Amino acid sequence: MRIARFSIDGNVAFGVVEGDESVPDGLVLDIIKGIPFAEYERSGTKVPLSKVRLLPPVLPSKVVAIGRNYAEHAAELGNEVPEVPVAFFKPSTSVIGPGDPIVYPSFSQEVHHEAELAVVIGRMCREVPRERVAEVVLGYTCANDVTARDAQKAEKQWARAKGFDSSCPIGPWIETGLDLAAANDLAVTATVNGDLRQSGRTSQMIRSIEDLIVHITEAMTLLPGDVVLTGTPAGVGPLHVGDEVAVSIEGIGTLTNKVIKRD
Amino acid sequence: MRIARFSIDGNVAFGVVEGDESVPDGLVLDIIKGIPFAEYERSGTKVPLSKVRLLPPVLPSKVVAIGRNYAEHAAELGNEVPEVPVAFFKPSTSVIGPGDPIVYPSFSQEVHHEAELAVVIGRMCREVPRERVAEVVLGYTCANDVTARDAQKAEKQWARAKGFDSSCPIGPWIETGLDLAAANDLAVTATVNGDLRQSGRTSQMIRSIEDLIVHITEAMTLLPGDVVLTGTPAGVGPLHVGDEVAVSIEGIGTLTNKVIKRD
Repeated sequence: MRIARFSIDGNVAFGVVEGDESVPDGLVLDIIKGIPFAEYERSGTKVPLSKVRLLPPVLPSKVVAIGRNYAEHAAELGNEVPEVPVAFFKPSTSVIGPGDPIVYPSFSQEVHHEAELAVVIGRMCREVPRERVAEVVLGYTCANDVTARDAQKAEKQWARAKGFDSSCPIGPWIETGLDLAAANDLAVTATVNGDLRQSGRTSQMIRSIEDLIVHITEAMTLLPGDVVLTGTPAGVGPLHVGDEVAVSIEGIGTLTNKVIKRD
Repeated sequence: MRIARFSIDGNVAFGVVEGDESVPDGLVLDIIKGIPFAEYERSGTKVPLSKVRLLPPVLPSKVVAIGRNYAEHAAELGNEVPEVPVAFFKPSTSVIGPGDPIVYPSFSQEVHHEAELAVVIGRMCREVPRERVAEVVLGYTCANDVTARDAQKAEKQWARAKGFDSSCPIGPWIETGLDLAAANDLAVTATVNGDLRQSGRTSQMIRSIEDLIVHITEAMTLLPGDVVLTGTPAGVGPLHVGDEVAVSIEGIGTLTNKVIKRD
């Protein structure tokens, strides 16, 4: 099942995506009563997807992201594969939705795309044992861990380089139908203006989804709607004003954002 | 003026701290109607401070903290003074209030105190010019940037080392009566079980409050209630289960927390 969050006529709602995506305007949203983190039901009231504005599918209190989780990507930036996962935060203020602009930050001359599988947390959890990871996952979406590479190199911690406003596009919706085995083996790609730049599979991740959730929740509580980014495959590269970047993940969908100049 | 957040009989409220702190039970809270980030007024209804439980004075969406902002502290850990401020996040789930326990994390054997001046942001802001920094500051409080030093050394980014649950005590209240010149020259101390461990002045900060707000908001939006930690003076050291750590800042007050064992 695919759960989108959207606005229509000034109202915000969640809806289940239905229909045939191969037909133009073939998708509709069955509006949800309630929220997907608790009891909810489909209302039966349906609106065409083409008539709504999709929003970030969740509003995370925090995004916990993992660096250097694909060996080829670590190598392309001249980094070793880390002995311990490299965990960092992207703040709620960095999150944007599908179609929202990535605003080129004033302090950087080198902004890169990083296509990533995003795990959406479904329930409050801490110290999750490996065998219970599936219980805390609501589903999966696409993310772009947009990075000011020059600032990342110059600043020892990455709060600005990976936490600037609009540096965390997520969407287009949450796919709830994948189990952990499936999610740990999905094709992940990024294109820029239609040209393929990144291509990998989540099976290449050094640490699996289970490894990451155990590692993070050993230290901290995750809340419903929090998001875990799982690292990016090789092929990262620059974005320029005017570019359109698309992150696609097998079985989930495509997250597209355009890069614009700061006013 | 000092604004505290507290619970009494299961209700949460803000209140203005009044009275004489030199007298036992001499302080009272004048309950606020509204919230201190918008229009509010004193209700005139007063409760003794000794009858309430103080809470974190704000619930930040994020805490942006700065590492190595005092030269002597950078040196004591064998670090250079950074050319660019070292900015990192502590998540909302790490925040606790005065009197709340610091829970020793399972993944660390070396947890340190770090006494810091905390800046409480009063309004949504981005790209704040230096001359307008005072406008975005609601006030100041005490913070303890509790750090799992061993994890900080082992993990290249500090999400776990400085973001674990209970690693961000703040309080006891927000002092709104200090201007920037005053806040940039306050005595900061930490004691453990009454023994002085850290002692410095905010005038020793490599980057002033203005520098830090400009640097952070060049990249990201700060929201009302967000908190900026300004770095710690020399003298950091270990905390053990059973210890009581107190951060005191001149003109603000004292933030006390006890370290307990994880259940």
